[in-house]
Amino acid sequence: MPKLRVHGFTISLDGYGAGPDQSVDAGLGVGGEQLHGWMVATQFGHEQFGLEGRGSTGRDDEFARARTENTGATVMGRNMFGPIRGDWGDDEWRGWWGDNPPYHHPVFVLTHHPHEPIEMEGGTTFHFVDAGIEAALEQAFAAAGGQDVCLGGGVSTVRQYLEAGLVDELHIPVSPVLLGAGERLFGDLDGLDRYEVVEVVSSPLAAHFVLAKKS
Amino acid sequence: MPKLRVHGFTISLDGYGAGPDQSVDAGLGVGGEQLHGWMVATQFGHEQFGLEGRGSTGRDDEFARARTENTGATVMGRNMFGPIRGDWGDDEWRGWWGDNPPYHHPVFVLTHHPHEPIEMEGGTTFHFVDAGIEAALEQAFAAAGGQDVCLGGGVSTVRQYLEAGLVDELHIPVSPVLLGAGERLFGDLDGLDRYEVVEVVSSPLAAHFVLAKKS
Repeated sequence: MPKLRVHGFTISLDGYGAGPDQSVDAGLGVGGEQLHGWMVATQFGHEQFGLEGRGSTGRDDEFARARTENTGATVMGRNMFGPIRGDWGDDEWRGWWGDNPPYHHPVFVLTHHPHEPIEMEGGTTFHFVDAGIEAALEQAFAAAGGQDVCLGGGVSTVRQYLEAGLVDELHIPVSPVLLGAGERLFGDLDGLDRYEVVEVVSSPLAAHFVLAKKS
Repeated sequence: MPKLRVHGFTISLDGYGAGPDQSVDAGLGVGGEQLHGWMVATQFGHEQFGLEGRGSTGRDDEFARARTENTGATVMGRNMFGPIRGDWGDDEWRGWWGDNPPYHHPVFVLTHHPHEPIEMEGGTTFHFVDAGIEAALEQAFAAAGGQDVCLGGGVSTVRQYLEAGLVDELHIPVSPVLLGAGERLFGDLDGLDRYEVVEVVSSPLAAHFVLAKKS
C-alpha cells in the first residue's frame, strides 16, 4: 500500500515547527530558517540551493534525500505554498521555489479558495483542493501512480493529518535552536498515541526522530 | 564562579518533562517513567537502582554521571520531593529515594509550607525553604562550599529558575517517547533567548542537548 510520509519536518528544541509572523520575507516565520540549517549543510541542500562547495554526506544527507524517494505526489497546506491569506485576488504568486520547484510531480495545495492549477517547469503542477484533507489525499494518491505521497507543511496541515490518523511515517528532526515562539507541532494533539518512535540518530546539526504507526 | 546546572532533565519528543496526574504510584506522572529509560539503561543507572547486569557505558552513562561531578548541593521543587500538596499534615514522607538518597549533600526543597529539616543516611539532608527561589539558591550555594549547585525538577521549578535567568547550564535529553499530555518544559517561557544549544549528541535511547548561557 502506498504511504503518506512526512520528511524533514524540523522542529526547534522548544517544539516549534515555524517561527512567529510568517510573511513574504520570512516564509518560515521569524527565525524559522534556523530550523533547516542541517538540511542546507548537506550535499542535497547544496544541490537544491545551488550553493558553492559540496555539502555534507552521511546521515543528514540521507535524511534530506529521502523525501524524493518513491514519492509520486505532495500535499501541502496553503501556508507552505505562500504567505497569502484569504481570497487569492489578482496575485500571481507561484510558490516560494522559483520557476522549477523541487517537487517534479503533482502538488496538491489545501485551500478554502478555488484556484486554477499552475503548471511549472520540471514536472511540478500545483493543484488547489478546497474539498478537505481527505479529498486532497485521495487526489494525491491517484496522481502518484502507486508511489507514496509526501506531506509537506505547515504545522497546522501536519497536525490535521496526524489527528485524522492518515500519516504513516514521520521524520522529525529536532534542531539545536530555541525559537521562543511560533507554531508548535506537538502538544494538545489527539491521536498521537497511534505512533511510536522507531529510530533516533543525531549529527551535530540535528537529532533525527523517525516515527511510525504502531503495528 | 560556582554554577547552577540542570542535568538529565528529560523531555519527550512532544515536549513534556512529566506525564499527567502525578501520584504516589506515578511520581513522574502517568507514563513519565518512560522518559528515563536511557538513564536506567546506563551503568550509572544500574548502580543507582541496584539492577542486575552492568548497564551501558558511553555517552549516556557519562551524561548520567555528570550530575554528581563538582556538585555540592541540590535545589528541587516540592513536586520532585513528593506527591503531597498543600499542608504537610502528619505525613512522614521522606522523599522517593529510600533511606539513603542519591544526593549525599544538602538538598533544598522549595515549599510554601515550613517543615523541619530531614536528615537521611549517606549525607543527604532535606531543607525546606519557603522564602522563594532566590533564597533557596543562596542557601544552596552557601552549603555547596564553592562547588556547583544542581537544579532538580519538576517542570515548574526549572521554568521558574529559567525565567529568572538563574540557570547557567542545562542538559536536556529528548527521549524517543510521545507522552501526549503532561507538563511542558519549554513553550511560553520568557527569557529562553538568553540560552543557546552548544552540543547535540544521541544514542538510540535519547538525543542529548546541552544548553549554555550566551556569552
